[in-house]
Amino acid sequence: MANSASGESIIRRFIRIISAFDDKHTSMSVAELSRRTGLPVTTTYRLVDELLLERLLERDPHGNIQLGTRMWELASRGSKTQGLREAALPFMEDVQSVVQHSTTLGVLDSDEVLYIERLGNASTIVDITKIAGRLPVHATSSGMVLLANSPSAYQDLILSRPLTKYTETTLTDPAALRRHLAEVRQRGFAAMPGVIVPESSGIAVPVYGPDNTVVAALSVVVPRDEENTASRVPVLMAAARGISRALGWRGKLKGTLRQSH
Amino acid sequence: MANSASGESIIRRFIRIISAFDDKHTSMSVAELSRRTGLPVTTTYRLVDELLLERLLERDPHGNIQLGTRMWELASRGSKTQGLREAALPFMEDVQSVVQHSTTLGVLDSDEVLYIERLGNASTIVDITKIAGRLPVHATSSGMVLLANSPSAYQDLILSRPLTKYTETTLTDPAALRRHLAEVRQRGFAAMPGVIVPESSGIAVPVYGPDNTVVAALSVVVPRDEENTASRVPVLMAAARGISRALGWRGKLKGTLRQSH
Repeated sequence: MANSASGESIIRRFIRIISAFDDKHTSMSVAELSRRTGLPVTTTYRLVDELLLERLLERDPHGNIQLGTRMWELASRGSKTQGLREAALPFMEDVQSVVQHSTTLGVLDSDEVLYIERLGNASTIVDITKIAGRLPVHATSSGMVLLANSPSAYQDLILSRPLTKYTETTLTDPAALRRHLAEVRQRGFAAMPGVIVPESSGIAVPVYGPDNTVVAALSVVVPRDEENTASRVPVLMAAARGISRALGWRGKLKGTLRQSH
Repeated sequence: MANSASGESIIRRFIRIISAFDDKHTSMSVAELSRRTGLPVTTTYRLVDELLLERLLERDPHGNIQLGTRMWELASRGSKTQGLREAALPFMEDVQSVVQHSTTLGVLDSDEVLYIERLGNASTIVDITKIAGRLPVHATSSGMVLLANSPSAYQDLILSRPLTKYTETTLTDPAALRRHLAEVRQRGFAAMPGVIVPESSGIAVPVYGPDNTVVAALSVVVPRDEENTASRVPVLMAAARGISRALGWRGKLKGTLRQSH
């Protein structure tokens, strides 16, 4: 439907345009947008004009193009992501006030962890998570929690790919990862020391939705030289239960919490 | 470009589709989507199919349509709104921990206040703000702060319209509003008792960007029967200075802070 002469749909061109913006590129000229999207300049001008008219794009004070506030509004107000982050935010504040490092909420999207919320000051610790940023599943505590609670077909897919070894502690061997995933399922949390940057450890626990499936991972990033990383687990588990209940979950968490009954 | 037989562009139809979702309607059948958008069923099916393929829409476990996580990601990661909320969030947590009611961050968009962040538990107080929700400029403390710091042409536009009187304290007379705006500019904050719901008061202060223009309003909503509402102003002003500095502002706030030098 409504394809251009090159056969590419307007929707796909629109996606190319909005994908050109990220946290390092929040505004740019139409010429730069054309370069970044690979769309011809005249095509870019035409589509940008329409998107400006519809307020999905805006001009900044220097005349450059940026994503429109309306774009953010329309994508946010009806999104399940927004509902999840709103349910989680009060509990994340509680964790943050106790742990004093950064606290994140991540979901699986395609083959990566997408962080949908993050609290905490990046300057206190080496932490490469950012909101609407992505990290690989196998090299993050959130990814391990989400993968451990995923269908085995999805696990097979992730584990059959070449996995990057970011640090000396990154697990990349499928058999070792499967053993680790079983451990994460049994314990109810993942603790990963320095798997993506050597200086930091991630600890993550699952967040459950109403149908008792895992919908997100709640995690903290702490300095790797911290003595008792496992002491962070109870506060995370308590917060994850709170978020899960706010989402309509009525079950029990797996792992250590059950053992303590 | 690429208009349908009815002359409506694909982009406009796409906007109709994503606009059909909000916090009360996060997922729906294609038939309901067709009703809510006013688009013919076959057109809706065709566009939904393409948007599912591009992951701007997703199916929920019941087969209904919802906004895709990718839609939220693309609209968030490069947006100035996201940068503003990330800069503000740590300072909003500080305000929240002291004030213990709800704390919001709002921007002007079109002719309304759009709330881009909100902390706090809605159950503690009557507060109708929500994230990615809108409220009228003249009936909110944030709106008054943003309007007081807007170009006079914009003020004239807002004040020339019929303004809804939500409660007995809502100002709707343009002359009274102009006097109030002058006061807000001079004092550096807006305090509005029960102007949109009788039970709550809003207090708001401006947040400045690098070029010393007001880019947002930081506000708290407190019970209207609270004795000393003005005591909330210093913590808000301190947080607003922090946010402004995080955004690259190097100036001084107007109003009471200057008087205290």
